[in-house]
Amino acid sequence: MLVVMKSGAVQSDIDRVCQAIVDLQLTPHPIPGKVRTAIGITGNVAPVDPTLLSSLPGVIEVIRVTKPYKLTGREMKPEDTIVQVGDVRVGGPAITVIAGPCSVESREQTVPAARQLKDLGADMLRGGAFKPRTSPYTFQGLGEEGLRILAEARQQSSLPVVSELMNTEDLELIERYVDVIQIGARNMQNYHLLRRVGQSRKPVLLKRGMAATLEEFLLAAEYIMAEGNRNVVLCERGVRTFSDYSRFTLDLSIIPEIKRISHLPVIVDPSHAAGKRALVIPLARAAIAAGADGVMVEVHAEPKKARSDGAQSLDLEMFAELMEELRIITPAVRREGTPTP
Amino acid sequence: MLVVMKSGAVQSDIDRVCQAIVDLQLTPHPIPGKVRTAIGITGNVAPVDPTLLSSLPGVIEVIRVTKPYKLTGREMKPEDTIVQVGDVRVGGPAITVIAGPCSVESREQTVPAARQLKDLGADMLRGGAFKPRTSPYTFQGLGEEGLRILAEARQQSSLPVVSELMNTEDLELIERYVDVIQIGARNMQNYHLLRRVGQSRKPVLLKRGMAATLEEFLLAAEYIMAEGNRNVVLCERGVRTFSDYSRFTLDLSIIPEIKRISHLPVIVDPSHAAGKRALVIPLARAAIAAGADGVMVEVHAEPKKARSDGAQSLDLEMFAELMEELRIITPAVRREGTPTP
Amino acid sequence: MLVVMKSGAVQSDIDRVCQAIVDLQLTPHPIPGKVRTAIGITGNVAPVDPTLLSSLPGVIEVIRVTKPYKLTGREMKPEDTIVQVGDVRVGGPAITVIAGPCSVESREQTVPAARQLKDLGADMLRGGAFKPRTSPYTFQGLGEEGLRILAEARQQSSLPVVSELMNTEDLELIERYVDVIQIGARNMQNYHLLRRVGQSRKPVLLKRGMAATLEEFLLAAEYIMAEGNRNVVLCERGVRTFSDYSRFTLDLSIIPEIKRISHLPVIVDPSHAAGKRALVIPLARAAIAAGADGVMVEVHAEPKKARSDGAQSLDLEMFAELMEELRIITPAVRREGTPTP
Amino acid sequence: MLVVMKSGAVQSDIDRVCQAIVDLQLTPHPIPGKVRTAIGITGNVAPVDPTLLSSLPGVIEVIRVTKPYKLTGREMKPEDTIVQVGDVRVGGPAITVIAGPCSVESREQTVPAARQLKDLGADMLRGGAFKPRTSPYTFQGLGEEGLRILAEARQQSSLPVVSELMNTEDLELIERYVDVIQIGARNMQNYHLLRRVGQSRKPVLLKRGMAATLEEFLLAAEYIMAEGNRNVVLCERGVRTFSDYSRFTLDLSIIPEIKRISHLPVIVDPSHAAGKRALVIPLARAAIAAGADGVMVEVHAEPKKARSDGAQSLDLEMFAELMEELRIITPAVRREGTPTP
Repeated sequence: MLVVMKSGAVQSDIDRVCQAIVDLQLTPHPIPGKVRTAIGITGNVAPVDPTLLSSLPGVIEVIRVTKPYKLTGREMKPEDTIVQVGDVRVGGPAITVIAGPCSVESREQTVPAARQLKDLGADMLRGGAFKPRTSPYTFQGLGEEGLRILAEARQQSSLPVVSELMNTEDLELIERYVDVIQIGARNMQNYHLLRRVGQSRKPVLLKRGMAATLEEFLLAAEYIMAEGNRNVVLCERGVRTFSDYSRFTLDLSIIPEIKRISHLPVIVDPSHAAGKRALVIPLARAAIAAGADGVMVEVHAEPKKARSDGAQSLDLEMFAELMEELRIITPAVRREGTPTP
Repeated sequence: MLVVMKSGAVQSDIDRVCQAIVDLQLTPHPIPGKVRTAIGITGNVAPVDPTLLSSLPGVIEVIRVTKPYKLTGREMKPEDTIVQVGDVRVGGPAITVIAGPCSVESREQTVPAARQLKDLGADMLRGGAFKPRTSPYTFQGLGEEGLRILAEARQQSSLPVVSELMNTEDLELIERYVDVIQIGARNMQNYHLLRRVGQSRKPVLLKRGMAATLEEFLLAAEYIMAEGNRNVVLCERGVRTFSDYSRFTLDLSIIPEIKRISHLPVIVDPSHAAGKRALVIPLARAAIAAGADGVMVEVHAEPKKARSDGAQSLDLEMFAELMEELRIITPAVRREGTPTP
Repeated sequence: MLVVMKSGAVQSDIDRVCQAIVDLQLTPHPIPGKVRTAIGITGNVAPVDPTLLSSLPGVIEVIRVTKPYKLTGREMKPEDTIVQVGDVRVGGPAITVIAGPCSVESREQTVPAARQLKDLGADMLRGGAFKPRTSPYTFQGLGEEGLRILAEARQQSSLPVVSELMNTEDLELIERYVDVIQIGARNMQNYHLLRRVGQSRKPVLLKRGMAATLEEFLLAAEYIMAEGNRNVVLCERGVRTFSDYSRFTLDLSIIPEIKRISHLPVIVDPSHAAGKRALVIPLARAAIAAGADGVMVEVHAEPKKARSDGAQSLDLEMFAELMEELRIITPAVRREGTPTP
Repeated sequence: MLVVMKSGAVQSDIDRVCQAIVDLQLTPHPIPGKVRTAIGITGNVAPVDPTLLSSLPGVIEVIRVTKPYKLTGREMKPEDTIVQVGDVRVGGPAITVIAGPCSVESREQTVPAARQLKDLGADMLRGGAFKPRTSPYTFQGLGEEGLRILAEARQQSSLPVVSELMNTEDLELIERYVDVIQIGARNMQNYHLLRRVGQSRKPVLLKRGMAATLEEFLLAAEYIMAEGNRNVVLCERGVRTFSDYSRFTLDLSIIPEIKRISHLPVIVDPSHAAGKRALVIPLARAAIAAGADGVMVEVHAEPKKARSDGAQSLDLEMFAELMEELRIITPAVRREGTPTP
């Protein structure tokens, strides 16, 4: 249920509606817009009688929301959400390019590369300190040491940093070092983790699960938002199919559909989907052409030496080529180009 | 196996190699290139001793081809294939836009629309006369009457025409009326049909089966090419997945992969994949950005009245918008734009 | 739409209703049951007014059928269909075991094996004369020579024979030699072929397409039945998924669901689904336990020498073991066991 | 790598080999068998020279294990693992039936039903106290109150209890109340959680992720076992496909394949896969016929009142019917039947 306030409604009107919602043992979620405020209602098991709210001062309309997602939907918030990360505005007119190694392996591999990525036009640095690996016997990341290296790379490159959180116990640690908390595909339905990052003040980059429907994807974001954290960036990274030539099947159709039904920004990770570097640049171009707000790509100074995902990592030369391609295609979808370095 | 001839090899050298191949009870496929001729060999069950051929005059190299596809692969023919249809060159520098109704329903619906599509910049007209329908109780197309309407539309619009062939018995009929024979997704592994269009002189537009791997897709093209018809255009149209918001999942990653391993042109049909028109324009943009040689879209003058696939058909206004978008994005991938009308 | 006649309705009542349906430019399909006759109606694009029929003498009820399939549904024919093939009754109390080589390779390989299969308890002989092969360069079957060998094997073993038809042109040939016409998974939506076998008097074994939904599967059977051939046996053979250890994913859940909504018999082919012989016996057991009316398995006297699908073929010893297992499990699902040889 | 000791090897031989492995900075995992002991080695990034170990006293063979899973594989432990839960032996000659409501809703709903399930022949009680729900706005379980109710149900029915753990913070709580810790499909790759239950002394029931390959499934079990907990029961519960009639596609082929390559017991949950109760009994029968060590089914005294998954829950009458069916089919696969109540 969604209560839409008149454009002239004052704060006391809004407060009164919120109190009425609380009296119904439900939770109000005021969503201030440029023109008017809407108040989302969550927690109702049974339908609520709309007349209990529609007669209150300042209320223009009470809308039944039939979709199971509410806070993520455009019905509740028609305007695009822009997630601010330092100077970077994900979901704004400019596209966002996030780049970096799959996992942080050493200071030497990470810090100079971060500076070069910045020089080549990247907007944010990615790098895993905690790695979700299919086998318990493979490299699992450097942990806090990796986070410290990322922090130094940020300081030297002035790029904000995104890194993955795998369990609630590491939340404080991650929060101390990174600018954006990534929730990986394997944890998209780890609801406890979603709730906890929902209580964080850091923006969250939520990757789509490898077999998640669109509705499940939005409901995972809903878990985060229902806890109060409205700064969620969605990330398409490929779904599991019978494909014989790529690791996952990148589902670019979801980009315009998310744009249609949700106000959240959405970016694309072509590296994990493809699993081979030859496909990364064309897919990054296609992602932007489909309307994505940015791309996240794996870049490694020496891909052949990478301890994970080397086959899909771009080297710095290929990253420069990617940036050049994006600079050309971005204005063709009426987005602002990333600044020429 | 592939025999690569020296650039200075003369026809008698080539003939001698072909004869040696025939003597081995195999079939030679001479593939003349700009610089040199290669001779593909098919029909071998067991491996062939390459020294039997490598010592012949004019031979520079004999290459084992380990992939099951041969004629479709870049190893045999490194240069891009361009399929000529009237004045249209599919796979050349310019992208190709094929548009028209799902099925031909009447003269009135088809002929004026064809002229308008031409005016708006379409390169080819599509329209089904024989329709593969999931249910035997739904509209199955007008048959020959539909083909006659298409022929009139071609005459009045000067657009070449592509229409689907569903069984071998209709081949002569289709050949008489259309410029490009379409093989639909449901018939991608109808091998008898593939062989028969392989004997036709008309170019073939081969749609990917809804659960076809890349290798199966190329081997379906191989069936056509092995019969002598080298004018095959591949078409990605979405694969079947668990998707809850689109009819099929458009697999754009296959575009750069096909470009890498095959010389055949490849286009994309976003209409059938999406199943709803709101996704068609962004996906068409993404297809071109991924490197596709063109798009095929459903356009209906009055989508609400369409007897099939109305929900995914663009109207003429949306088609004009699509063409405008493609005009902007095409140069960004260094392809020639379609001429402004 | 379905017209249900009173149990006491006489033939002239039935004829009158059929005529009324014809007058509405629709097609009546009388389906005589043990107790009463129902008359299915097909061909209606728009809804029909039921009162036009419900007032006729002998009519007890007129039921709107909302599912797109009609003739295949239990609503139209509540009683199980039994398909008679010689002495074999597919869908009756006893389960049916169909066995034989993937493709007929020689008289020597086929005829003695058929006799042994009969001795071991098989009910029908399978064997491909026309083979749908992914690659044009692999063994495509012996054609008519293969059919002749099958006919001899039938004569010597007294097993009825099932073999695949791949295109309409071979229909008369196939009809001459085989007892059951198989439509393969790749042709499940080859509608022209379906219509043509619908006009045949031979029973049809229809394999599920590798990405076919249940509705599409039943509608493919509907194509056959709408032409008048009611002797259709459905066959589940695995669907395409991301599985990393089997060729296809055998979907046994479809067995009880088909039994619930359709009256047609359904058997299971575990050999093609598994792709490896170690899984065939447990899956055959599971198929019968799930309620299947039989199984179809690949058996080759010398699997290592098979020209196709050797890895999944049982040898005769394993087939004997399978029969032993089935003899034990069949009574546990209250089906009649196959006779002990 | 796996070191196989002679049957006559004494403890000091085993200790010496373990020490040698530790000296190589690797981890030894002694696996005592009935006849001989094998010592698994984990932790090696690079290959280890086998001669360093093969010359030690008591060693009969050093085997390279090429599969990424080790502790879960039959190569390391050829004998079936039996997981003991109270008097129940999962993976032994008798099949195991686990039954109970999707979620624990009240004392009244749970305790009497547990006694009835026991009377009808169930071996274990299932019930969720913490529920992973796709939407944050649906019933999430009673938490510790639910666990207390389960404990009372156990006391009154003497059935061991299995319940799901969703995050590490609840581990001690769950351990206090339940006999088997369930890891749900959505958490199959929540590696932190897997490691923590690997340190628990309670057996773990690990459900397959909805898009997990067999290798990923076994590697998830490997995470648990590598921490020392060898009591893992695998559970197939359906994978995500395009199916239009069931919630998931139950992949019964995985049962014989797991039995072939792993020593771990494996059970099947037909309720979540099917999503409708009409399919549960036939699929349970098929699971046992395929070789599963047991089934886990949802049973609710009043399915229509269930707060989650009511559509797929059996009522007690249907559960009695299921038990009757299993009693008939179990001996047909040469397993011991559950005792007649």
